[in-house]
Amino acid sequence: MINIIKSKDNDKIKYTKSLLKTKGRNKEKKFIIEGYRILTLALECEAKLDYVFINEDFEKKEEHKKFLTELENKGIKVYKTLNKIFLEMIDTENTQGILGVLEYKERDLVNNISQDDKFVLILDRIQDPGNMGTIIRTADSAGVDAVILLKGCVDIYNPKVIRSTMGSIFDMNLIHATQDEAVDFLKSKEFNIVSSYLQTDNYYHETTYDGKIALVIGNEANGINDELISKSDKLVKIPIYGKAESLNAAISAAVLMYEIKKYLV
Amino acid sequence: MINIIKSKDNDKIKYTKSLLKTKGRNKEKKFIIEGYRILTLALECEAKLDYVFINEDFEKKEEHKKFLTELENKGIKVYKTLNKIFLEMIDTENTQGILGVLEYKERDLVNNISQDDKFVLILDRIQDPGNMGTIIRTADSAGVDAVILLKGCVDIYNPKVIRSTMGSIFDMNLIHATQDEAVDFLKSKEFNIVSSYLQTDNYYHETTYDGKIALVIGNEANGINDELISKSDKLVKIPIYGKAESLNAAISAAVLMYEIKKYLV
Repeated sequence: MINIIKSKDNDKIKYTKSLLKTKGRNKEKKFIIEGYRILTLALECEAKLDYVFINEDFEKKEEHKKFLTELENKGIKVYKTLNKIFLEMIDTENTQGILGVLEYKERDLVNNISQDDKFVLILDRIQDPGNMGTIIRTADSAGVDAVILLKGCVDIYNPKVIRSTMGSIFDMNLIHATQDEAVDFLKSKEFNIVSSYLQTDNYYHETTYDGKIALVIGNEANGINDELISKSDKLVKIPIYGKAESLNAAISAAVLMYEIKKYLV
Repeated sequence: MINIIKSKDNDKIKYTKSLLKTKGRNKEKKFIIEGYRILTLALECEAKLDYVFINEDFEKKEEHKKFLTELENKGIKVYKTLNKIFLEMIDTENTQGILGVLEYKERDLVNNISQDDKFVLILDRIQDPGNMGTIIRTADSAGVDAVILLKGCVDIYNPKVIRSTMGSIFDMNLIHATQDEAVDFLKSKEFNIVSSYLQTDNYYHETTYDGKIALVIGNEANGINDELISKSDKLVKIPIYGKAESLNAAISAAVLMYEIKKYLV
């Protein structure tokens, strides 16, 4: 049964709109995903789907109707509202007319990095939402066991991050931790910390990667903070052959992850 | 001497605004770059800077004043206009208050791929401006000699593409060609065409890359067209170890370019 809401002053509408902002999300520990494809992925990954909103047009497709039945069978509430009101709850203008609200999945180091894990990624103040989403998607692809997000990273529940992950937001083992917690934990588990660093002569492809690896990628403009550099076991850089000054952070992360993965499989 | 324009109906303003659209750009063979940093890069790279616009605030910084003197010394005309009018000539809201208009640099295969060149990138219908810009920037970094853009790629003079190149739009050897022209030319120069293709069992890191290489990267959703696949000398794929369905096109391009580059240096 679909609940119809026609007033934009309705509490469910106001509540959902509050999740468009980091502050609202952090208070409620919930976030919005938008689009049919990502909703189907959420269901497949058994993400904790709280409720769903559709607009007036969503039910026009047969496939969409079936999906709503599936939601109903799982006991997930569906609300329907006017196209105009629906648009106020999302951050894009092109929409398929469906959004879902999910609970945060909070993970810690101790319970989410196991004895068998041998490849983690540490992100230090990654700021651009597109980069963050792409890094999470690539980490998933490259077989990284966990992504550790240090303080100062962009909110991973930002809608642009979620879109760029292309579904990996549900699959990936994402852990928030302080730098000290992360370094202490990883060293105790015998991870070697490998940091991407421009001021080294050690090229990434002229070295080897032994044992368990924790790869660190730093801020787009400033790189990795000095303290974390000083605690690293190995510093590597990707050569720049042309005139470009640097690589995009998500690109550096990808080149290094796929290189290191060769030593771990 | 700075020319001051206070009317938005001024011809120079109207002309510049027409360059915000692909149609206007293609007619005039000119494009807009925006921001202080990229303007300084354009000057360093000796790009053909036609004229410059600044807003009311740009001259407040000493460094900016010096830059204007440098432009004057090179005989480049500078126009100053109201902040409000300036904003109509750019596609972002945050601005440093400077834009430049440049001529297209049109290049063909015959005159821009030399006997010594051994690494080119072919792009088949790359659609996302951010991907296109990032691929151009990464190609520059990875020492690619030329990027060949087949029909159906996003306009490289789109402001979002230019921003994502981070200056590599000036450095990189960018060539527009049809697929037949590109394939015929590259085969005649003994390039091996290596295509990124999901339906192969040939992993990119379990093969070797001999001779001159032309790497092909295809459309974000549909990959490389069948005809180009059939004309390829080698098909390779990047393994997906996790649950992600695919890699972003710019990420695939980067992983493959840096892997192939190891065989060419």
